[in-house]
Amino acid sequence: MTALLNPRVSVSLDGPLARSLAAAEPLDEFEAWFAERRAAHAFRVGQAPLEALDDWSFDPVTGNLGHRSGRFFTIEGLRVTAAGRTHEQPVIRQPEVGILGILTRTVDGIPRFLMQAKMEPGNPGLLQLSPTIQATYSNYTGVHGGQPVRFLDHFRRPDRGRVVTDVLQSENGCWFLHKRNRNMIVQVDEEVEPHPDFHWLTLGQLGALLRRDNTVNMDARSVLACLPLAGPAPSSAGRADGTAGDDARYSDTELRSWFTAELARRHTRTQLVPLAELADWRREDGTIRHRTGRYFDIVGITAEAASREVARWSQPLLRPHGQGLAAFLTRRIDGIPHLLARASAEAGLSNGMEIGPTVQHIPGDCGQPDRVPFLDLVRDADPSAIRYDAVHSDEGGRFQHSESRYLVVETDDDQVPLDPPPGYLWLTPGQLNSLVQHQSYVNVQARTLLACLGLGAVTRP
Amino acid sequence: MTALLNPRVSVSLDGPLARSLAAAEPLDEFEAWFAERRAAHAFRVGQAPLEALDDWSFDPVTGNLGHRSGRFFTIEGLRVTAAGRTHEQPVIRQPEVGILGILTRTVDGIPRFLMQAKMEPGNPGLLQLSPTIQATYSNYTGVHGGQPVRFLDHFRRPDRGRVVTDVLQSENGCWFLHKRNRNMIVQVDEEVEPHPDFHWLTLGQLGALLRRDNTVNMDARSVLACLPLAGPAPSSAGRADGTAGDDARYSDTELRSWFTAELARRHTRTQLVPLAELADWRREDGTIRHRTGRYFDIVGITAEAASREVARWSQPLLRPHGQGLAAFLTRRIDGIPHLLARASAEAGLSNGMEIGPTVQHIPGDCGQPDRVPFLDLVRDADPSAIRYDAVHSDEGGRFQHSESRYLVVETDDDQVPLDPPPGYLWLTPGQLNSLVQHQSYVNVQARTLLACLGLGAVTRP
Repeated sequence: MTALLNPRVSVSLDGPLARSLAAAEPLDEFEAWFAERRAAHAFRVGQAPLEALDDWSFDPVTGNLGHRSGRFFTIEGLRVTAAGRTHEQPVIRQPEVGILGILTRTVDGIPRFLMQAKMEPGNPGLLQLSPTIQATYSNYTGVHGGQPVRFLDHFRRPDRGRVVTDVLQSENGCWFLHKRNRNMIVQVDEEVEPHPDFHWLTLGQLGALLRRDNTVNMDARSVLACLPLAGPAPSSAGRADGTAGDDARYSDTELRSWFTAELARRHTRTQLVPLAELADWRREDGTIRHRTGRYFDIVGITAEAASREVARWSQPLLRPHGQGLAAFLTRRIDGIPHLLARASAEAGLSNGMEIGPTVQHIPGDCGQPDRVPFLDLVRDADPSAIRYDAVHSDEGGRFQHSESRYLVVETDDDQVPLDPPPGYLWLTPGQLNSLVQHQSYVNVQARTLLACLGLGAVTRP
Repeated sequence: MTALLNPRVSVSLDGPLARSLAAAEPLDEFEAWFAERRAAHAFRVGQAPLEALDDWSFDPVTGNLGHRSGRFFTIEGLRVTAAGRTHEQPVIRQPEVGILGILTRTVDGIPRFLMQAKMEPGNPGLLQLSPTIQATYSNYTGVHGGQPVRFLDHFRRPDRGRVVTDVLQSENGCWFLHKRNRNMIVQVDEEVEPHPDFHWLTLGQLGALLRRDNTVNMDARSVLACLPLAGPAPSSAGRADGTAGDDARYSDTELRSWFTAELARRHTRTQLVPLAELADWRREDGTIRHRTGRYFDIVGITAEAASREVARWSQPLLRPHGQGLAAFLTRRIDGIPHLLARASAEAGLSNGMEIGPTVQHIPGDCGQPDRVPFLDLVRDADPSAIRYDAVHSDEGGRFQHSESRYLVVETDDDQVPLDPPPGYLWLTPGQLNSLVQHQSYVNVQARTLLACLGLGAVTRP
């Protein structure tokens, strides 16, 4: 089941994690719990004009949209110049660093992961499986006057458990400006107090759930991608002479050099500008829209839920037009599974670029190139070549019905050469899992697919 | 000689690199060559009012200082808010990514490194030892109409050699905004054409030269720090249970978690503002100065040199007031040398923070805290505890006589506890060398000291 991750994963993978991956126990209990949670949560989402949102208002000078408290996030304007082309767009600015954390505990030799049934107003289906905690800085410092975040102490005071992973990761770089969250997994030994919104699952069960549409939320996928599965495998060091190891086409040094060169050759300039100054974007009918109706709208919603920290609130959400597509092409090189990685320039990323999946086609991305390489190859793929295919949505607290179809597509030498075009490189899933242990390497779309690969959701040929 | 780097370095260190470190051949040839180069270069630097610099001018609206071509760099205004305090300052903005690269070639089993005798107008002593190439994007695309950069092809087309390291590194975060350069070492097999400005040196020789004041320039120190000496040592993975390995106090996972937590708890907001709007900075007598006379000045210089790509030019430089100090405290923990690392918040860094030396006291840093912890301990250190002590300067193409004293000071439990204050952590030099293989971890001051540690310039007790 883990063969796609790394051929040596069976050697280097921690024994307990391998057992948790293999533990694909029935999901009956999960189903009953999740259905019960759905019923228990009276949750209603309605649309509202941006001007009518409680505690949100447009700055009279800049036209920026913000919360009365000055916290949470703002909608501002961004001017982006890349490859000689300039565009302007609204951007979500949320400079605070939140915590996305999953607790894990080993019972009878099998690590289980504590997942939460969480309503977010922008989620398709509203209820999805989220990390144990999903706390903005405003959340956990109590700015919005809600209830304290359950289990937060395990993540703020890691001496209460063992840190398995803890790394800052970016989010959608086409819509967020420099947004980053701590992605944490913390192992505890002692029992934790049960609560109806929380449920323990094995990695095998999570892998099965990742095959379903709109079930595991973006934050959970991001954190699960950071689980260090590959270990200090030979591939992550390369041979002593610096050439590729036995399993990966390129050594890690070569891989990092490729990424450094890509970072160096792109010059993206970004500048915050007042929202009111964006020539092509206008406020009408209580929303913010592009004059052509393309890309995305900023809309207002009202939400009511019993399980949220506060019972009733209203807020803006970004609603993109059209479904996105994110896909890794995969093939064996000398018998070893590789993924075709792409250097993804995104204006909102802290460093302007991270590694993304082979294809990332987002109709709501104002910086989207006119022609997306390999897109047709994915869209026209023979069903027998599709190893993974599911629809997942972006963070439902910021985006409304922002869905993308995620695929892993088997390919061969006739379709994609061993030496792909500039900006692309073949690497192993194990190498990607090594890179994701460090900030600013792997974008949010690639992390979703990495979680699917690591947790056995991707079928083998 | 390399014991400070990692106790296991003798196991994991590449054979040839170990031989190059041990090859502390006499420096007679170097001395003769360097003296000859100094004599050969007719180089004069004079002061000039900023208003009189060829091709440089102040923007009539913003007051920003820039080059007629729109390239090189600009001096703009920066507003910084951190820890509830706001300050404003001029900042050097140079969004292009340059290349700092050293060629290495093994002759008779010993790798040698090709260093350049390079004049920079801001260098104390003018001539220093620099990397093989030191090219801004403007340099290597020929914007200033000078001669082509010698040996550039080895770095732009790495298929001509083997990449040993290639990573984006920051520069002085208190004066540069998001400045980053590729730090590269490329190994070649074939002979390269000799040139009077270039000289081959072993790592042992470079280590000896790092003990001298103002001899090895900042770019060379930065690149040499990135030489992967520690290898995939056990310390970089930790034990399978995630606790620290045998040699390091903290596992790499714990180390990264500490750094992630530090990144998350600091909120620095930066905003570019027109230079003319800085209330506390003024143009007078052809310079830009703080109203108190503190921190630094922006001054104009004219330079003439035969060895530069262009023979004569004028430009602004940042001239800080007072000598800086950068020091690592070191001690053995369970017999293993550790360094006391500090999470260094610097407004101009891409991520706002990197790992710096224990003490970083820069009089020219407007964001400098009032009290610098451990500064007295370094200043008052008993001579017998000082393992390293030399003065090095910052990049002479941007800074004039910007010197800092660099130290490594042995300490003990009475002076610094095993559990240091928040923002500090004990790590091994090997762990620092592992981190420096990735972008955005290790700041430029820590890299200078890491180069000294790695190349045997630091004496053992």
